Amino acid sequence: MTHSYISHLECPKCNREFPHNEIQQLCSCGSPLLVRYHLQELRAKLKPDQLKERENSLWRYHELLPVTNPEHIVSLGEGMTPLLPMKRSEADMNIQRLFMKDEGIVPTGSFKARGAAVGVSKAKELGVTELAMPTNGNAGAAWALYAARAGLKSTVVMPVDAPKITRNETAISGSNLYLVDGLISDAGKIVGKAIQDFGLYDASTLKEPYRIEGKKTMGLEIAEQMNWSLPDVILYPTGGGVGIIGIYKALSELKELGWVKGELPRLVAVQAENCAPIVKAWEERNSESEFWEDSQTIAFGINVPKALGDFLVLEAIYETDGCAISIEDAVILEEQKKIAYLDGAFICPEGAATFAAARELRKKNWIKENETVVALNTGAGIKYPDTVNVEVSVLQKNESISSNS
Amino acid sequence: MTHSYISHLECPKCNREFPHNEIQQLCSCGSPLLVRYHLQELRAKLKPDQLKERENSLWRYHELLPVTNPEHIVSLGEGMTPLLPMKRSEADMNIQRLFMKDEGIVPTGSFKARGAAVGVSKAKELGVTELAMPTNGNAGAAWALYAARAGLKSTVVMPVDAPKITRNETAISGSNLYLVDGLISDAGKIVGKAIQDFGLYDASTLKEPYRIEGKKTMGLEIAEQMNWSLPDVILYPTGGGVGIIGIYKALSELKELGWVKGELPRLVAVQAENCAPIVKAWEERNSESEFWEDSQTIAFGINVPKALGDFLVLEAIYETDGCAISIEDAVILEEQKKIAYLDGAFICPEGAATFAAARELRKKNWIKENETVVALNTGAGIKYPDTVNVEVSVLQKNESISSNS
Repeated sequence: MTHSYISHLECPKCNREFPHNEIQQLCSCGSPLLVRYHLQELRAKLKPDQLKERENSLWRYHELLPVTNPEHIVSLGEGMTPLLPMKRSEADMNIQRLFMKDEGIVPTGSFKARGAAVGVSKAKELGVTELAMPTNGNAGAAWALYAARAGLKSTVVMPVDAPKITRNETAISGSNLYLVDGLISDAGKIVGKAIQDFGLYDASTLKEPYRIEGKKTMGLEIAEQMNWSLPDVILYPTGGGVGIIGIYKALSELKELGWVKGELPRLVAVQAENCAPIVKAWEERNSESEFWEDSQTIAFGINVPKALGDFLVLEAIYETDGCAISIEDAVILEEQKKIAYLDGAFICPEGAATFAAARELRKKNWIKENETVVALNTGAGIKYPDTVNVEVSVLQKNESISSNS
Repeated sequence: MTHSYISHLECPKCNREFPHNEIQQLCSCGSPLLVRYHLQELRAKLKPDQLKERENSLWRYHELLPVTNPEHIVSLGEGMTPLLPMKRSEADMNIQRLFMKDEGIVPTGSFKARGAAVGVSKAKELGVTELAMPTNGNAGAAWALYAARAGLKSTVVMPVDAPKITRNETAISGSNLYLVDGLISDAGKIVGKAIQDFGLYDASTLKEPYRIEGKKTMGLEIAEQMNWSLPDVILYPTGGGVGIIGIYKALSELKELGWVKGELPRLVAVQAENCAPIVKAWEERNSESEFWEDSQTIAFGINVPKALGDFLVLEAIYETDGCAISIEDAVILEEQKKIAYLDGAFICPEGAATFAAARELRKKNWIKENETVVALNTGAGIKYPDTVNVEVSVLQKNESISSNS
């Protein structure tokens, strides 16, 4: 049986096609490339029920992933994260059914593991020996660790302000790690030069076509976990945008396979108030975003002033009648506490932004009273310990607790 | 179909029996209680193959868990963590087959989630509204978050030196959190008094019978993931010892069910050099351990000077022809780096200790050249960022990388 139904790579801007069995970065027109599959052929061969007994990782969807030889798979057991009912939060928000797709429960503690697993596996298949990338922290950690597992060398550049945990996580892999006194865009320039100087594989966001395929599996899993019916709304914290692009691609492919029916969920891009280029573009009905000056947010993972794939994010929103919404940092932190207190989940600030957005959109009646909503939590709260600010009483050994309220 | 085959509670010291449908803490003789099931009845009703299509969490084994009504289950999607081949590490250690059971990939980032999920669910079933416990950090965080999800109140006391992440994780749940300027034993005394003063449910290690049942699922999963054949050796980092007690209990129950055959794996309790009461007891062939004075280790989770269930840990070792071994802190940190570099996994110090132990036991030929070994990583490395010490170059925006080696 064919392991992957990959057909070719295609440019979503100029429609040029490229073979998948050699290294490709951007299209000659500058656009990211998308992976295409022989979906009609697969439709005849595979039924969703056949997935039931498959391994409990994103590789269960191997026909819809780009790795052609299973021996090239580099896995740390990523994927099939829980889709959790959030009973007390949904009551609190007056939403009929609210689920959290919890991407904190993956290797490296963030959804970046999916892109890294598929991206590194395909890089290995293509004979890459060294890769390089800029990062706000989580992606770099994930790619560095998966590269180590694959036996590949990596060069990673991140802002000095990136969370210390992700810095250490990257460093311990043996990666060539550099910090830059600047933003991810500055890191990107340094990586760009290193790629030219040393002939490295460019693993920057969307500059290789396979990270999207890894992220796509979030969409596949949501559909399978809901037994191939789909929610009305999916909210996603949006920085580089690969997650929302991937989910849209997944749902479109499932539709073409005939595994899901009806309208696609309305996709919502959630950004931070002080870094909201997609929201601005959406409000102005533009097809691309503008660089956001002096961006800042405690949700470090979505501090991306201009995403290379912005036009794909906006397309996903427009095509599904979705929307884009921005949330203040203070509201994000408040929501993070509510979710922990109500439903016992310690989520990351980016994830908290999606719940705050759901709450807000329900208030505005954009989310209707009888709708089913999935909010993505993109990482474990434990990766961001400094977002929690609490005063805790310190007792001496012989003291006792004076009241339990 | 019966959801749980629970029969009763039994004291492993004095054999007294207790009903499971009311709150029980320790036996009147002071020993922890163990949960017993109608295994012969279950043997006739359930075959391992029937598990294949079940949900991807530890609740797939609900017949072997104590919750009788599925509505009482409090879940964050815990369990079915990956059993990962460690190809480059096994070659480095000259071990024929080495697997890591990765308990970093669970809610709250440590294996404590298993005990908390089952413990809190059963507490809820028994009508508990408030629980209390001392902790070195991870267990407190897990129980506080699961309690929040269940709508229960919690009181948690941890040493001021416990990792900040676990402190914040506990606090954000809305738990009544206190720090004590002392060790977990001091925290235990404060909790003991609060339990008496306020009539709380005692969720301290082994003072309620259900945490073991949660931990037990690690053993059930290892067996299922190895297709009901068993490894030769399982190594476990041992503080309070509930993990190794649980795994031994799981394997014994599977044997009685007829789902596994042959000899049980040799169980290895791994401790830190400066907190090794079980190792000392094992070397002296004692059935209980002595309090370890001035214990200290960077592997904070196994800094337990005297475990209430020490006799059960030692029984598990003796009955399986296992052993106990202690590892220096410096060696633990060195192994943590090796595992990241070789196999891309950023594990916690406690987990690193098990790999260092495997390496050592192979050198001594205690692990034979043709044996299959499972090492438990009990938590995500990201929960312990301070164990990684690296120097990283800082570049200015206009600088470039001068060499990629």
